[in-house]
Amino acid sequence: MATLKVPEVVPSPTEDCERLRKAFQGLGTDEKAIIWILGHRNASQRKKIRDTYQQLYNEFLIDRLHSELSGDFRNAVILWTYEPPERDAKLARNALKARSKGTKQLEVLVEIACASSPHHLMSVRHAYFLLFDCSLEEDIVSSVSQPLRKFLLGLVGSYRYDNEAVDLEVASSEAETLHEAIKTKKLDHDHVVWILCMRNFFQLRSTFAYYRETYGNPIEEDIMKCGNSVLRSLLKVVIWCINSPEKHFAKVVRDSIAGLGTDEDSLTRAIVTRAEIDMLKVRTEYAYMYKSKLDDAVIGDTSGDYKKFLMTLLGARM
Amino acid sequence: MATLKVPEVVPSPTEDCERLRKAFQGLGTDEKAIIWILGHRNASQRKKIRDTYQQLYNEFLIDRLHSELSGDFRNAVILWTYEPPERDAKLARNALKARSKGTKQLEVLVEIACASSPHHLMSVRHAYFLLFDCSLEEDIVSSVSQPLRKFLLGLVGSYRYDNEAVDLEVASSEAETLHEAIKTKKLDHDHVVWILCMRNFFQLRSTFAYYRETYGNPIEEDIMKCGNSVLRSLLKVVIWCINSPEKHFAKVVRDSIAGLGTDEDSLTRAIVTRAEIDMLKVRTEYAYMYKSKLDDAVIGDTSGDYKKFLMTLLGARM
Repeated sequence: MATLKVPEVVPSPTEDCERLRKAFQGLGTDEKAIIWILGHRNASQRKKIRDTYQQLYNEFLIDRLHSELSGDFRNAVILWTYEPPERDAKLARNALKARSKGTKQLEVLVEIACASSPHHLMSVRHAYFLLFDCSLEEDIVSSVSQPLRKFLLGLVGSYRYDNEAVDLEVASSEAETLHEAIKTKKLDHDHVVWILCMRNFFQLRSTFAYYRETYGNPIEEDIMKCGNSVLRSLLKVVIWCINSPEKHFAKVVRDSIAGLGTDEDSLTRAIVTRAEIDMLKVRTEYAYMYKSKLDDAVIGDTSGDYKKFLMTLLGARM
Repeated sequence: MATLKVPEVVPSPTEDCERLRKAFQGLGTDEKAIIWILGHRNASQRKKIRDTYQQLYNEFLIDRLHSELSGDFRNAVILWTYEPPERDAKLARNALKARSKGTKQLEVLVEIACASSPHHLMSVRHAYFLLFDCSLEEDIVSSVSQPLRKFLLGLVGSYRYDNEAVDLEVASSEAETLHEAIKTKKLDHDHVVWILCMRNFFQLRSTFAYYRETYGNPIEEDIMKCGNSVLRSLLKVVIWCINSPEKHFAKVVRDSIAGLGTDEDSLTRAIVTRAEIDMLKVRTEYAYMYKSKLDDAVIGDTSGDYKKFLMTLLGARM
């Protein structure tokens, strides 16, 4: 379901590094070559390129990219070149250090906790303290106030069972618990936190399906009618990231281009983090939700090398 | 600081397996050989022996030990032969499934969360869901009631920064927060949970030291004077496991042999889990706290192969 296109015959990491080195040298930078190489390599190939580049030239590839490129193009290429756990740790840190701490800033934490594997979340937490000398939890406690804090702590602290194990009795009783919390407008009840933060994703999808069958509406619609407005928005992101991440990321892309100006950081994040995972599904969902093409949206709101790079990750032949 | 004695020249895993196989064969079992081999190998050597045994004889070493041995001796040898994360996941599960859920049963969870490395805790959580098809957190929620539940969830959910990073201002302000919670008998306040569950161990030791200097008593002594009796006992274990695990394990050994009868499960757990870590310090601390020798206590309260095995782990020449 990825949009990333890797050539059938991939050059060796050494060949890729030599071409990158050539692209950096001389007057100006050959951005086209950089897009062509990095934009067509998957995470493990990019890792080999990073390692080989450092061995060959005794400098970090990311440092070199930083000095050669600029603007949104630079941000996107660098984010793409990081090891995914390191990338997400940096995104999480930026979100927690942003001045405003609304749902929009913090949804990246939910994406890491709910739209990635439990193992990836652990790797991000490990990368976080290697990079920032403190734990992700410590930064959440010091940066986010209640009631978001307890949900975010629960979400990033969980290590969910990572296999399909669904108990239909649990689904019905926990759908009832969630319904009761929504009805009494107690979205921040401990039981809501435990259910959403601890149950495995398959169990939760079953619980949400049971909720819809029994109470008539998707649970996120009922949540949006009650309680603290910031919390309910966050919970909607939680439910979408668990139930159908493609909906969430289609919305991230849409919100980033809607209205005047573009939120390049969010647009970059959505495409860079999902190009290797489910961007084909995001594209389909986008078309369904907004009756227009995601690719046209990106083409219309971006330009230059930044546009070329995002479109490459979206699978376009540039 | 381990008491485990590994010979200078260690036989190959194949040689060890052949000797173990011989010990199992024929009439009766050669327990002495089993103690001699497994009781003198460290965790990575035992892992190689397990793997090699399976390859050579197409059966699990632990299954064979189970069928050959019996009683407390069997429990101790098997616990020692498991991969440490698997061993601790099983200990945690047994604690959560025990009928009574007092501090005594649950302290094994605190040991895993506070007297081991953050990385080990993650491995235990991973082993837990591989073994039991659910997460450790789910079992805590379903087995333990408040106020212990929120502390245990916080403790096992944390992924502490694993390096020495101490901020003296944080130490003083958090010592003050803890003192306020103790003074107002609100041990289950969220701030107490966050401080004890999230801060790195070096930071917490500095906070506890500041507390003692400023308020005159070790923090665990002040805690024992206030609040819910089960919670304060658990918090004392938390503080000892963070500050001086040797005190905690000396007490586990002492409690296991004190009074009529012996609590073999606790005695086994203390020796098996610490023989490779800090049993020398536990022994010294035991002598200081109880004015008697830990080894004499074990010799006096155990017998047969069980005694021989524990004493081997304690470094005795049997």
